Amino acid sequence: MTATEERPDYKYVGTRPIRHDGLDKVIGKARYAADLVLPGMLHGHILRSPHAHAKIVSIDTSAAEAMPGVKSVVTGADFPDLGAAPNGDLAKNVIARDKVLYEGHAVAAVAAGTRREAMDAANAIVVNYEVLGHSLTIDQTMSPDAEILHDGLITRGIEPAPTEASNIVARTCFERGDIDQAFAESDVIVEREFSTTPIHQGYIEPHACVADTGQDGKTVVWCSSQGHFRVRSATADVLGWDTSRVKVIPAEIGGGFGGKTTIYLEPLAVEMSARSGRPVKIVMTRDEVFRATGPTPGSKLKLKVGAKNDGTITGVKAWMAYENGAFPGNAAMLGCMTVVSPYTMEHMYLEGFDVVLNKPVNAAYRAPSAPMAAFAMDTLLDEVAENIGMDPIEIRLHNCPSEGDPAPYGPKWPTIGLKECLEAIRDSDHYKSPVPENAGRGIASGFWFNIGEASSATVNLNENGTATVVTGSPDIGGSRASMALMAAEELGLDVYSITPVVGDTEVVGFTDVTEGSRATFATGMAVVEACRDLKMQLRQRASTAWDCDVEEVEWVDGHAVHSPGDHEALSLAAITAAAKRTGGPLGATASLNARGAGPAFSTHVVDIAVDKETGQTQVLRYTTAQDAGTAIHPSYVEGQMQGGVVQGIGWALNEEYIHDADGRMENSSFLDYRIPVASDLPMIETIIVEVPNPSHPYGVRGVGEVGIVPPLAAIANAVHDATGLRMSDLPMSPPRILAALGEAVE
Amino acid sequence: MTATEERPDYKYVGTRPIRHDGLDKVIGKARYAADLVLPGMLHGHILRSPHAHAKIVSIDTSAAEAMPGVKSVVTGADFPDLGAAPNGDLAKNVIARDKVLYEGHAVAAVAAGTRREAMDAANAIVVNYEVLGHSLTIDQTMSPDAEILHDGLITRGIEPAPTEASNIVARTCFERGDIDQAFAESDVIVEREFSTTPIHQGYIEPHACVADTGQDGKTVVWCSSQGHFRVRSATADVLGWDTSRVKVIPAEIGGGFGGKTTIYLEPLAVEMSARSGRPVKIVMTRDEVFRATGPTPGSKLKLKVGAKNDGTITGVKAWMAYENGAFPGNAAMLGCMTVVSPYTMEHMYLEGFDVVLNKPVNAAYRAPSAPMAAFAMDTLLDEVAENIGMDPIEIRLHNCPSEGDPAPYGPKWPTIGLKECLEAIRDSDHYKSPVPENAGRGIASGFWFNIGEASSATVNLNENGTATVVTGSPDIGGSRASMALMAAEELGLDVYSITPVVGDTEVVGFTDVTEGSRATFATGMAVVEACRDLKMQLRQRASTAWDCDVEEVEWVDGHAVHSPGDHEALSLAAITAAAKRTGGPLGATASLNARGAGPAFSTHVVDIAVDKETGQTQVLRYTTAQDAGTAIHPSYVEGQMQGGVVQGIGWALNEEYIHDADGRMENSSFLDYRIPVASDLPMIETIIVEVPNPSHPYGVRGVGEVGIVPPLAAIANAVHDATGLRMSDLPMSPPRILAALGEAVE
Repeated sequence: MTATEERPDYKYVGTRPIRHDGLDKVIGKARYAADLVLPGMLHGHILRSPHAHAKIVSIDTSAAEAMPGVKSVVTGADFPDLGAAPNGDLAKNVIARDKVLYEGHAVAAVAAGTRREAMDAANAIVVNYEVLGHSLTIDQTMSPDAEILHDGLITRGIEPAPTEASNIVARTCFERGDIDQAFAESDVIVEREFSTTPIHQGYIEPHACVADTGQDGKTVVWCSSQGHFRVRSATADVLGWDTSRVKVIPAEIGGGFGGKTTIYLEPLAVEMSARSGRPVKIVMTRDEVFRATGPTPGSKLKLKVGAKNDGTITGVKAWMAYENGAFPGNAAMLGCMTVVSPYTMEHMYLEGFDVVLNKPVNAAYRAPSAPMAAFAMDTLLDEVAENIGMDPIEIRLHNCPSEGDPAPYGPKWPTIGLKECLEAIRDSDHYKSPVPENAGRGIASGFWFNIGEASSATVNLNENGTATVVTGSPDIGGSRASMALMAAEELGLDVYSITPVVGDTEVVGFTDVTEGSRATFATGMAVVEACRDLKMQLRQRASTAWDCDVEEVEWVDGHAVHSPGDHEALSLAAITAAAKRTGGPLGATASLNARGAGPAFSTHVVDIAVDKETGQTQVLRYTTAQDAGTAIHPSYVEGQMQGGVVQGIGWALNEEYIHDADGRMENSSFLDYRIPVASDLPMIETIIVEVPNPSHPYGVRGVGEVGIVPPLAAIANAVHDATGLRMSDLPMSPPRILAALGEAVE
Repeated sequence: MTATEERPDYKYVGTRPIRHDGLDKVIGKARYAADLVLPGMLHGHILRSPHAHAKIVSIDTSAAEAMPGVKSVVTGADFPDLGAAPNGDLAKNVIARDKVLYEGHAVAAVAAGTRREAMDAANAIVVNYEVLGHSLTIDQTMSPDAEILHDGLITRGIEPAPTEASNIVARTCFERGDIDQAFAESDVIVEREFSTTPIHQGYIEPHACVADTGQDGKTVVWCSSQGHFRVRSATADVLGWDTSRVKVIPAEIGGGFGGKTTIYLEPLAVEMSARSGRPVKIVMTRDEVFRATGPTPGSKLKLKVGAKNDGTITGVKAWMAYENGAFPGNAAMLGCMTVVSPYTMEHMYLEGFDVVLNKPVNAAYRAPSAPMAAFAMDTLLDEVAENIGMDPIEIRLHNCPSEGDPAPYGPKWPTIGLKECLEAIRDSDHYKSPVPENAGRGIASGFWFNIGEASSATVNLNENGTATVVTGSPDIGGSRASMALMAAEELGLDVYSITPVVGDTEVVGFTDVTEGSRATFATGMAVVEACRDLKMQLRQRASTAWDCDVEEVEWVDGHAVHSPGDHEALSLAAITAAAKRTGGPLGATASLNARGAGPAFSTHVVDIAVDKETGQTQVLRYTTAQDAGTAIHPSYVEGQMQGGVVQGIGWALNEEYIHDADGRMENSSFLDYRIPVASDLPMIETIIVEVPNPSHPYGVRGVGEVGIVPPLAAIANAVHDATGLRMSDLPMSPPRILAALGEAVE
């Protein structure tokens, strides 16, 4: 760990206590949604489309309804048509209406006494389909001959607006300077076309929920998600209900990485519970997770980079098409926002396209759209450096943006730590060590903007001087520990005297989804604000006890201290013990819309060896340096950095969706969809860079996402270093490497 | 209903919406502690003492531990000895140590796979007892020959302090003026001795809990109680744990009436869960509820009342002994505080004694200690009125205290409504109607002081303009509805747009037990305070939107209104829809120590008929007038008034504990312990008197308790009117009436 700057002398922030929920998770006591059993509970099962694209001509559920144990059968006709209203597409993804748009699209659902009964009944539903032509690639779906997925889908962002429907959702364009001039002034120009496939987030826990709908028209939903307030509003929208009829209780979450920011099962469970008068549980299989939940987009990217012989980037021209899956999204916008952010340049022309095609709808996945963009950009920059004979770190430092420079997406950069990340890698033992024999080394940087949004926290002091910190942010990566650490620091209480709690939608204030690396930043800010309110209350209680002005009372290390020194310090526990009599219990709530999320940068170095017999790439050593702003709990920051790298390695080397000619996925299991396991990997070395974010009371930036951005390019650059191959299609799987080696020999 | 004063023009307060939890309770969906099933859960059973008083010589649990399915066996030796620390006696009541002090006292507990296995194993525990002499009456236990229950129990409140231990816990004395002078100045003096037996609260739901203790040393307890924060701290104390290791989740409660303000099972379940690593459920049988949970005290009272011929009470002398059960309590203090409160007088001498004896430990029961005191006082006042030929309402009006008069327990009376209750009964159709033939009519008044204490509330506004009101007060009598009504009134939202929630000990601020008629008063005050904070926030959001001073924004009927009129009003929903962007979600927390609880008075009139053949007393008509301050939800106020009357009728006429010579209860079921059922009763007529409490924002006093105070005397006075008998021993059961009629004839 490298602390870049001298930081305040924190007592708790920056320490590594065992997380409050750790033991429960280690011993199997933590309760996930699938663990919940309610009296009289039914089991749901979903019938899914076998076709990639088809009209639903008719659905006959009568045989299913007559099957043993069946209490409810629903189809799209049982849910409102939201049209163009918010979540209208989500509703059609939750259960198909007139069309199925991908293999795995939900068509009907059954609730029965047992899961077996529900599956049998689902299989007895008769669906007549009229199969349509389908598109599985960006080229196919952008072709004028492609079967149109959505009648009336007119591409946005094109002037004049097209008159014909297509599968192109929108064009996005970010432009600066004059890109032709940039290339005219360049000493070297490199240009390539890249492709990446959809990648699944690969969370261990499949989606699951239990819904219990009462005769009063209200429902309680238990599910794991990255944001139960969004589950509440989205479920209500899909049902056509008022939001407050839905209460969502967050279960523990077994991984999300962006993939659990949306809903799939909840409205079906709620509706079947309402119809049957019984609680309904639905748990996906891994097969369903692959076929029907959101991967990150596949992409096709054409980038052209110009530079001078001194390494100065003159300009970048990008054409980037992103798959949205079956319904429109905005992936290309995020690609345009991130593709050139680690570099300054006078000229750029970034054009992005969103397209729909017959695959599951995208879901977010760690820094969505950025890794594929960085794959292209940092591969080409490596090529530029090679052409002009410059060190890959040096060329990045030479073009490194700093505070006040314009960011590609509009604003000026605030305080950022990319230079410090590059220097940390440059100065690392790894980078200073020679590249192992027969191996190659690659470097890449990555960027993610991070977000703020709405968060709430309630902090209650208990009569024995301990505190409970309630937030609405599900703990997907150690946020209980980080909330407790910030509260401990503020109040001067031992971190284990703080009980961090994730509250349901009825007991804590509205809180946005845990995404965009925002939980420790924004929810942490709410915790700090509530604690500061409490400290003022504590000082007031002391000032009342001492009959002095509150300004004479300071809060020091968990004690009220009389600054003129006339009274003995009062501990927090002494104040809370008396609180009932001195004005009532002490508690505070804070809700805010967090501004000033700190942009995150990261630089990686990787050494790899390629087995030229098998095409297998082995990662030998991997070091990541990332600007965390301030690492509240360094172990979980390191865990996020390592997790991002490992997922990036899987994306770079092995993971891909394989479809047959009919658009059916052929590798929907963890045996066939190959994510990295521990034995595939070295220990990922981490360097936490700390350039505090001045907009956060403890300087937090958010660390969850940027770590997945550099690995694709870093590994591609290392493969080039080892083999001379410029791999521009992911994954760089053994067959692809072998094929490329063969071509290189020819 | 009589509204005594013109009251503000409330829109929601004073209306009668269906309670938010009503449907769930009617259809059986509400979840009580016994309804919870956790995976791997064990069932607990408690071995109880067959003796009223005995030393425990030895306990051998080895056979029990070897029984099928048994996972844990605990005895008193497995729990810490708290000595004289707070809850030390509670700990010994939860599980006996060296002695058992009443039949039913817990001696050991077993957790096993099934309840049957646990019971069988409990029966296999071998306990050697050395049986001691026991006391079941006040006379027995106060006798110098009585077996001492607690070595070293020296009576408090006697000067000089006794040197020998006894079963007398304390003497309390309230004195004013010169009681001998009072009697010397009296025209009429009446004097009697009274006795009452312990009475069980008779809640429908037996005690139940589920505890799930983790390897991290923390536990989660689900149970129904009147105050889960007290369950938390008491359970922690008994275990010798830090409070914050215990989380208590409130289940729905099936009646408490004071009896669920303490704990019996929770520490046993927690400890056995810790030892077995499994959740443990314990559910009492009705037999256990009777033998081992707290009744209200039995009492022996000697009162002497002096008065002048014009009806003026000159003075009252009282000697009042209250049973505490097996461990010391403070019942006599409450008797002294309440016995003469409905009357002014210059002289009084009130002496109270608390005694321990070999019966279950008292628990609170609606206006604890007051009904038996009022039974004595109002019976004698009836006799005074008869002697001087004065109407029983007139004599009460003649001696009625009003604001500024000294209360017997110290302070001066604030605004009170006894006069209004007396007038309401005097002017009622019931009192103006003739007494039915062969029937008798009785009148009595009652007093309860009510309490404030600590309460917390969090109010969160949802994005769709609805609100969630979270409090820490279990809903034992409609408090969800009353909280929602007050929040609706404050915010100008429809009452069904408010979701009232009872939060667990980790999500809401500390809140004292629901007792002393405090929930709607004190917790309601916290709700109002939080709503007023929210209204300020809402006005601020509007002022920001309008770029005006917040003072120019008023909150009117759910809308921000620009008082100069330059802007169109903004609805609450419009503000919450934008809240995320205008500063974050809107929520507020309030915690307070409520001051200014409004004293409650009530006057009752009852007509009864006595069947001289069987001795059975039939209640023909019953009317109660009670000062509610303001009735937030009149239906639930009426319900409380009616419930108090019905329980008082049971106490007066039929309920009693019957013990055999060895101190074993002989009637521990609802078949043999006769509480009134619907067919025993007429509709109880209610007159809500509203003399607002100036210390509460809506004038609430608290209505739960005082209703049980007058019935004992009212019925005794009616029996006298019908039969000429002055019944001074309760219950006035058929055998007692017959015996008294026989004596009267002799």
